This record gives sequence, structure tokens and C-alpha cells, in this order.
Amino acid sequence: MLYDILVPQLTKNLRNLSAILDKGAQLAETKKFEVDVLLNARLAPDQFNLIRQVQIACDTAKLGVSRLTGKPAPSHEDNEKTLSEVKSRIDQTISYLNQFSTKDFEGAETRQVTTPRWDGKYLLGTDYVHHHILPNLYFHITTAYSILRHNGVDVGKKDFLGEMPFKK
Amino acid sequence: MLYDILVPQLTKNLRNLSAILDKGAQLAETKKFEVDVLLNARLAPDQFNLIRQVQIACDTAKLGVSRLTGKPAPSHEDNEKTLSEVKSRIDQTISYLNQFSTKDFEGAETRQVTTPRWDGKYLLGTDYVHHHILPNLYFHITTAYSILRHNGVDVGKKDFLGEMPFKK
Repeated sequence: MLYDILVPQLTKNLRNLSAILDKGAQLAETKKFEVDVLLNARLAPDQFNLIRQVQIACDTAKLGVSRLTGKPAPSHEDNEKTLSEVKSRIDQTISYLNQFSTKDFEGAETRQVTTPRWDGKYLLGTDYVHHHILPNLYFHITTAYSILRHNGVDVGKKDFLGEMPFKK
Repeated sequence: MLYDILVPQLTKNLRNLSAILDKGAQLAETKKFEVDVLLNARLAPDQFNLIRQVQIACDTAKLGVSRLTGKPAPSHEDNEKTLSEVKSRIDQTISYLNQFSTKDFEGAETRQVTTPRWDGKYLLGTDYVHHHILPNLYFHITTAYSILRHNGVDVGKKDFLGEMPFKK
């Protein structure tokens, strides 16, 4: 169950993130400025820039799934500088997520999850998903979106939400 | 189950939203400007302003729960202009959410949910929560947060995440 509400969402949202970065690249090309300007943009002087927002979104997904399943995650050096490096980071994260299946999440609901920052406290797996992974993922992707939108990139909520599993 | 992963999250996040609006009011008072400047701020000329971001966050919660349970939602005229009116809108939404319990969500997972915008298509309840309600809620609350942050309000991710159900 936890797999179903988590992993496909993570993958979809990271793909949406990659797609809005492409829209940023399009604007840079049209307006003849370096896309690096967008990659280094932020909405406040003490806020992380766009590259870092993407890195954290990726780590939220990667470490989230790793901690819930007890499987190791690949490490990343957070040294991405170009658009293609940033997009590759997203692709690598999606490839990692694609290795998991429902079976890996057996018992994850009640697994005790902690991070080095939590001083020995922990969250149960279900709480970790709903109070930590999903809010953080959406927070950093929306912030990336806002940085692009503020700088004139033509993104709208549909780009953020992505494809919906409509039935009729 | 759907109640547990949805309603407490909606309530907590709307409370967090109300608290960051208070931080905006504090900055306005300290710097001697009208808080209305923040309420009408936006990050792009064709983006909804802060008031509208709050209204949509509230409606996402209110209409989401109403559609999942088949119970009517109170209507709001979207005419809030002052900080106290905006905060009252949040309070009214939380009061509405507080009327629900697990029992109201029986069968909600497989309920067919639609909106006037979806041309007869529908989402199953579980998909509606994970592909629509939660992403939209976090999107509009993060956007409200970003508008405040961009304007110098002292908000950080802890304000966004709020209290965590840690155990030890």
C-alpha cells in the first residue's frame, strides 16, 4: 500500500520537475540568456537556489525510499552545475526508484525511520511518508516552480500536477 | 484509513499557513508597512496573489473532503480582503474539517470523484487524495510561503512542515 501511494508519485513529480526545467531552457534560448542564470536563481538571498532545490527534491525521494525499505541509496556529491547535470541527477533518482516494487515495502508502514538530524527520535513509516517525504517533495518542487515562474518561465499548475489517472 | 492520512494533514497544514501569515503581520508591524501589501503580493504578474493562494488552499481541503464523503460544504464568496478575514477563512475551513471522523470516509477509497472542470471524467477516491488534494494543498501553501519569503518574512521550512509526530 505504501509503495502505491508513494513511489509512483515520486517518479511522476520528478518527471514533472525535469519538464519544467526544460521550459526554463526554452525561455533562455528564446531570450538569449544563459540557462545558468535560472539554475542559480532564488526568491530570497538566504534561500537555496534552483539547483539545490532540485538536489533536495531528489534526495527526499531517494533517502525516503531507502529508509522505508532498509535498502542502501547511491550517494551523490551535490556538484551539479549545468542543466544536463541537474537533469541527469533527476534521471538517476528515477532509475533508483524504479528498482523498487511493492514487495520491498513489506512492513514499511510500521518501520521506525530516523535521520541523523533527529537526535534519536523516529517516525513510524506511515507518518514519515505523510509528514516528511510528501510535504518536503512538494515543497521543493513548488519552490523550483516558483523560481522559474518568477523569472518569466511559462509554467502553470498543470505542469506541476502532471498527468492525472482519470477514468470515464 | 483515508481519513487518517488526509484530514489531520489538512488541518495541520492550514494551521501552519495561518501561523506564517502572522509572521507576515509581524514584519509589517516592525517595518511599518500595511500588511495588505503582503496579502496582495505575487511572484509573477499573472499569478494569483497571497489572498487567493489561501482561498484555494482552503477550498482544496473543504471541497476535497466534501467530495470524498458526499457531504455538503459551506460556500464562501472569496471576498476576503483583510488579514483577519483571511485568517477567519482558514479557521472556518478547519472547523468544517473537524466535523468529520473516520466513519464518514467509509467507502471513500473507491468513491468516484469528479469536479465541474473534468468533463465527466472522474478519479477514484484514493487517486483523488494523492494526485489532486495533497499536491494542490502543498502547492498553494508553498506558494503562499514563497510570496512571504520573497518579501522578507522570516519563514523557514520548519514553519512549513509544522509539528512532527516523533516518537522515542
